[in-house]
Amino acid sequence: MDDFAADPSHPRYESLLKRHLLENAAERGMLAGSALIAHGRGEAYDYLIGEKTIESAMIASKYALSKLKNTSRAVISVNGNTAALAGVDLMKLASLLRCPIEVNIFYRTPERMSVLLKHLEAIKQEYDLDVEILGATPDARIPGLEGPRAKCCHAGIFSSDVILVPLEDGDRCEALVAMGKTVIVVDLNPLSRSAKMGSITIVDEITRVAKNLVTMFGNNEEVLQFDNSENLRNTLNYINESLTEMSNSID
Amino acid sequence: MDDFAADPSHPRYESLLKRHLLENAAERGMLAGSALIAHGRGEAYDYLIGEKTIESAMIASKYALSKLKNTSRAVISVNGNTAALAGVDLMKLASLLRCPIEVNIFYRTPERMSVLLKHLEAIKQEYDLDVEILGATPDARIPGLEGPRAKCCHAGIFSSDVILVPLEDGDRCEALVAMGKTVIVVDLNPLSRSAKMGSITIVDEITRVAKNLVTMFGNNEEVLQFDNSENLRNTLNYINESLTEMSNSID
Repeated sequence: MDDFAADPSHPRYESLLKRHLLENAAERGMLAGSALIAHGRGEAYDYLIGEKTIESAMIASKYALSKLKNTSRAVISVNGNTAALAGVDLMKLASLLRCPIEVNIFYRTPERMSVLLKHLEAIKQEYDLDVEILGATPDARIPGLEGPRAKCCHAGIFSSDVILVPLEDGDRCEALVAMGKTVIVVDLNPLSRSAKMGSITIVDEITRVAKNLVTMFGNNEEVLQFDNSENLRNTLNYINESLTEMSNSID
Repeated sequence: MDDFAADPSHPRYESLLKRHLLENAAERGMLAGSALIAHGRGEAYDYLIGEKTIESAMIASKYALSKLKNTSRAVISVNGNTAALAGVDLMKLASLLRCPIEVNIFYRTPERMSVLLKHLEAIKQEYDLDVEILGATPDARIPGLEGPRAKCCHAGIFSSDVILVPLEDGDRCEALVAMGKTVIVVDLNPLSRSAKMGSITIVDEITRVAKNLVTMFGNNEEVLQFDNSENLRNTLNYINESLTEMSNSID
């Protein structure tokens, strides 16, 4: 971060900071080739929700937090983009939840796994967090997936009943749901397969979500009722209404 | 392209091919650091229009082609992403229009300029096209811009009255409009500054646009009436309607 010189009052500061974090992560070998393209897609969808946490996302986040707090078998799964953008807050969340965090990447190579594990380990040291970091020695498989992308840890993803999987691939999301888990998806595209497949879908940007979950942790606000499809429809309606407004503003 | 092995019948073939072209271009030093993120944003907006040329885009393309054909001072401006994705068809279009093509990049470095010029030169040889490729020795400046991004060629962008500038930055687009040119923008985000600023805005993906312009060249179909704001509003209405449909399909 030392070489990031943008002015925090710059209107695009948040966006520039995220790009900077990802470019750094790419240089360090944390990201797959498609990671920057995926981030760009996220930027476009984020623009459509006004680059803020909208009401439907907050409702989903609160419900997700209730679910995470009310189990002893929660896990947080992180990939390259997630670790680069929200590694610190997700490590803090894992510490608050007393749950493990598992590095779990779609394009698994020993090099990328090692860099990501070191990245989380460094955060653990810097913030003095008591968190178990999993992923180094996968000893279980997600049924229904083929090849390296099925690999996971028995003590983490495999045995969990509630899993937070930001920016997850549709196939993997589906396989986790098929295992009977409560799958909490964070995806800016409300129409992605993951978004439609998840048990709880938070249509919001991962750094904002992670920050919100940490901030709300102490609130003890229980959300008991939640309908994911209805919430997704509300999100799409919100996007529609903003597009209509923006359309009307073209002169 | 030799190492691109995807099956053309794959539902994501077009999308995978574009990513492959960009990854190749990145390896060859043709792209700026932000190019892949920009492409990802494009993918997201393309998804919203169904990854096809919608009616409003076709109308804008036809009108743009009329304008390009009815002047002796047309120019096609290309940057890294444009050259990588649509270099061949834009070179063919320049040959049909008998107009120059100018390499004109936002983050100008001698290395990137050289790789891009060589890329277009190779297309010129391969397809035996009679096209003047400009950009190597800029000798003019676009008024209102600072630094290297103002550089352009007198015989190309500077003297043109109709300019096709796909995937252009908002500031540059504004500066070209201020010079009194008819600025034809190709941008998948109908709400970008370039889209709103352009004289003729084609909300479509650049490889489809370039192919359409080449295919339609011989048609001699004149489009005489065109209202860019109205056309943009039609595009937004189209997106709104598809989102509403997609929203209704969530069960």
